[in-house]
Amino acid sequence: MPTLDAEVEAPPAMDSSHRIAALNRNDKPFHVVLAQQFDRTTIEQLCQLADMIRTVGASRQGTQFLLTLLSHRRAMLYFIQPSTRTFLSFTAACQVLGMPYNSVRDRSTSSEVKGESEDDTIRVLSQYFDLIIMRHPAEGFAEHVAHILNDMPRTIPVINGGSGKDQHPTQALLDIYTLFRAFADPETTRIERRYMRNVFSGKTIAFVGDLKRGRTVRSLTYLLCRYPGVRLLFISPPELRIGEDILQYIGRHSVEYEIADDLPSRIGECDAVYMTRLQDEHDVAGESKSIDYYRYALTCEMAKDFKPGLAILHPLPRRHELDQRLDSLPQAKYWAQVRNGMWMRAALIAAIFNVDVAIRDHYHAYYNF
Amino acid sequence: MPTLDAEVEAPPAMDSSHRIAALNRNDKPFHVVLAQQFDRTTIEQLCQLADMIRTVGASRQGTQFLLTLLSHRRAMLYFIQPSTRTFLSFTAACQVLGMPYNSVRDRSTSSEVKGESEDDTIRVLSQYFDLIIMRHPAEGFAEHVAHILNDMPRTIPVINGGSGKDQHPTQALLDIYTLFRAFADPETTRIERRYMRNVFSGKTIAFVGDLKRGRTVRSLTYLLCRYPGVRLLFISPPELRIGEDILQYIGRHSVEYEIADDLPSRIGECDAVYMTRLQDEHDVAGESKSIDYYRYALTCEMAKDFKPGLAILHPLPRRHELDQRLDSLPQAKYWAQVRNGMWMRAALIAAIFNVDVAIRDHYHAYYNF
Amino acid sequence: MPTLDAEVEAPPAMDSSHRIAALNRNDKPFHVVLAQQFDRTTIEQLCQLADMIRTVGASRQGTQFLLTLLSHRRAMLYFIQPSTRTFLSFTAACQVLGMPYNSVRDRSTSSEVKGESEDDTIRVLSQYFDLIIMRHPAEGFAEHVAHILNDMPRTIPVINGGSGKDQHPTQALLDIYTLFRAFADPETTRIERRYMRNVFSGKTIAFVGDLKRGRTVRSLTYLLCRYPGVRLLFISPPELRIGEDILQYIGRHSVEYEIADDLPSRIGECDAVYMTRLQDEHDVAGESKSIDYYRYALTCEMAKDFKPGLAILHPLPRRHELDQRLDSLPQAKYWAQVRNGMWMRAALIAAIFNVDVAIRDHYHAYYNF
Repeated sequence: MPTLDAEVEAPPAMDSSHRIAALNRNDKPFHVVLAQQFDRTTIEQLCQLADMIRTVGASRQGTQFLLTLLSHRRAMLYFIQPSTRTFLSFTAACQVLGMPYNSVRDRSTSSEVKGESEDDTIRVLSQYFDLIIMRHPAEGFAEHVAHILNDMPRTIPVINGGSGKDQHPTQALLDIYTLFRAFADPETTRIERRYMRNVFSGKTIAFVGDLKRGRTVRSLTYLLCRYPGVRLLFISPPELRIGEDILQYIGRHSVEYEIADDLPSRIGECDAVYMTRLQDEHDVAGESKSIDYYRYALTCEMAKDFKPGLAILHPLPRRHELDQRLDSLPQAKYWAQVRNGMWMRAALIAAIFNVDVAIRDHYHAYYNF
Repeated sequence: MPTLDAEVEAPPAMDSSHRIAALNRNDKPFHVVLAQQFDRTTIEQLCQLADMIRTVGASRQGTQFLLTLLSHRRAMLYFIQPSTRTFLSFTAACQVLGMPYNSVRDRSTSSEVKGESEDDTIRVLSQYFDLIIMRHPAEGFAEHVAHILNDMPRTIPVINGGSGKDQHPTQALLDIYTLFRAFADPETTRIERRYMRNVFSGKTIAFVGDLKRGRTVRSLTYLLCRYPGVRLLFISPPELRIGEDILQYIGRHSVEYEIADDLPSRIGECDAVYMTRLQDEHDVAGESKSIDYYRYALTCEMAKDFKPGLAILHPLPRRHELDQRLDSLPQAKYWAQVRNGMWMRAALIAAIFNVDVAIRDHYHAYYNF
Repeated sequence: MPTLDAEVEAPPAMDSSHRIAALNRNDKPFHVVLAQQFDRTTIEQLCQLADMIRTVGASRQGTQFLLTLLSHRRAMLYFIQPSTRTFLSFTAACQVLGMPYNSVRDRSTSSEVKGESEDDTIRVLSQYFDLIIMRHPAEGFAEHVAHILNDMPRTIPVINGGSGKDQHPTQALLDIYTLFRAFADPETTRIERRYMRNVFSGKTIAFVGDLKRGRTVRSLTYLLCRYPGVRLLFISPPELRIGEDILQYIGRHSVEYEIADDLPSRIGECDAVYMTRLQDEHDVAGESKSIDYYRYALTCEMAKDFKPGLAILHPLPRRHELDQRLDSLPQAKYWAQVRNGMWMRAALIAAIFNVDVAIRDHYHAYYNF
């Protein structure tokens, strides 16, 4: 697995670089917990690896090579929070690499009904499996799991598939991979050179909607701050504005940003627009009912102002903030984004288990003429 | 996949041949949605293929050959309706062919709780998987899914594992396969010649019980209408009589039928009897409580009247309409019918992905002396 | 599979040797239903096989050999009782041997909602799968399943993963395997000789806590009675004392036992201590609320009295009866016990399908220098 970024910055309250160093010790496997863990080299290598897996996986012979890579390892998907998309994306990624898995998705079928602590559940899982992929409602739970695992004699790695309101690092990786592919033209550039350039410099990327409560926006912002010259545009209802801590994080990097309130007048200047739904399940007392969220929708009427190279992203599920009739436009990248998630997660798992070298070898031997 | 039957007929309200043509376009994968799609050649080829898979799968070497066939594809079982039998039958069929799968069985764990439309769920699934097998309470849902998939840039096939009250095409295929095996004597005829003859000509096949609401009876009738000379006997309480549309469909084919009300006096003339349970979960206001359903039960007392070659089928689950003490008779074919389902579904999936040729080759190379 | 112990004894009410003979007939596959089925030779061979699988499974080449062993068979985990640990242990065991599986964990998704009897469900499952592993709340259910399966034309084996309050034979096997490894020093003895000696002779093994209702204590006691010279110490609140039938069973073997009530004063004489939680889910009217269960806890304060070679076991989940701070002591064997369960269950499944010979061959060819 690539080295970590030593110079990671974070809000004073939590010092990421110390946290990351504590999480990922040299004598232990690599835990994927925070988006801030990923430096540019790592992002570049993962995107490259995802492309190679995709290319190799397009042939039957290549697919069967991939299936041998992790057939000797087993993954546990500990998903104690409703999720179809992320869950299936990870299972598909495991299947691409031939890695058997099992899942726990509901506390009621588990030993916790008999009074077991969740920490003990994690310890038990670490005896049966070689990787834990988890999704959890509790803030910081993935980090806690990493520390529990580091304390066991047999330590296995954990991947954060979304925890609390803050972090969703694998979504951030697939999002930046999708943006890279939209800007870098995968058809004409060789994989080895595809992700080395800062294609984000001079580009305007808008985040639209419920920016206060969407963890995907926060996580992707951490990654985009690695790319000087990118311009971030945060368009949201005043009540759902992006958090101050993120703005401070951006402020410490060479990245320009703007807070705005109106989508139609700004869409024409965007190179990418990242739409998000209203996260009203986090409402305390129905406070978002009074918001006219449809003002932050991307509609067919705006299509006339789209740049030809615009990339429309959405972490899904969508409601009315993204018109279905846009699906057939070349600018709609959100279905590709879904599939990119599978390849990116396969790349991440491959890298954690050090089979990335075998994939690169295979790619160069068979596909790189 | 075999060609479709161009001359399919259907009640005026729905023109099957147009529907089927719209569903299964030449530039798209083959969708299995309606029982009416299957002509005699297709039925014959699928039965033959199921026998070959069964034969090859009886040896360890053969099983391991089968396991390589679809290891590079992935299936999604989208089963939004309680089902054990059909679900497990399809998973076993996938496992026979080495095809990894995953499932969604409950809307509450899915993104729909976050407000996603079911159409979007299908679109997302199509990004991770290479086949959708579905079961759904809504009438016509499988057909709707086929059209959604045809509109995606990456189209994958759908198999209808039961939708609404009308269609259950794979059950019909395994039922006719079971009848074929009962009438054709698989022990003495070579696989290649086993299903070419119309073994149904001159045979009397009785359907007994809740014929109004059982979709298996309707679907199997569509297939039997391909075989001129078969005689269908519909025995049911007057309140649960077979639908008029089905009788009209039969009327348009060279098939004789009779409506009857008494099982004991007719059992002696039957070559096959297809028992069904009371589908009282479809009752609107408990209307079937007043029916003396036990009058339509197959009991031990009737066994003295059975023809020696009688085939007793039941789609299961059974209640009291089929006496457990009949299980040990040679005429009881319903457990074999269950296992036939696994082989037939494996044959269907193999045909959809064009690996039927490899199976035939392997069969001829190793088993056909 | 090894031969059964013909001289098994049991309380008068149920004659185990007759029961076992009826269950396991020569013309049928081997069913694992009762702990009493296992004689010393069988226990020894299974422990040896578990060690071989563990050793072979430590290398990538060995793991891939194991994956080929049962890829041509399919297991059904019919787990109609909440369970994470046992369920995942069995699925991991299947995965170690490359055996595909599926599960039914909830009656509400099954055909039983349509009125199917559970016996018919078992009959249907026997058509799709080659092994049923089950866990069930009903007393004697596994035995009932074995008889149903013996009556089918195509008989498959069943493994009892816990049924009713009495039997949990695979837990007993993994427990005795863990004790064996603690006493026999796996590092210095060759696998072939590791389990032949009665290492239990002269050893004191304490069972502590809710001995009345824990089925693991009962099942392990059946196995330990095979080893003359072992001394059993049952420490529990008077209300939760070990059952009279077990004491009578012990009395018929050359095994000494003692009933005690105080843990702190006895811990110093123990070679192994088997902790159990309060099973208050079996309370009829909250009767265990008045028990001071913490008096039967193993605490850090007692560590000063531990023998250096003490083995602490716990079937898990634990509550407060086993202090978490003990986890880091070398005497704590309960996490290893969890992992031992996976290897022992893999050994058992391998033996049932007669691939134990292939494992022994492979082990001797590659690992036994």
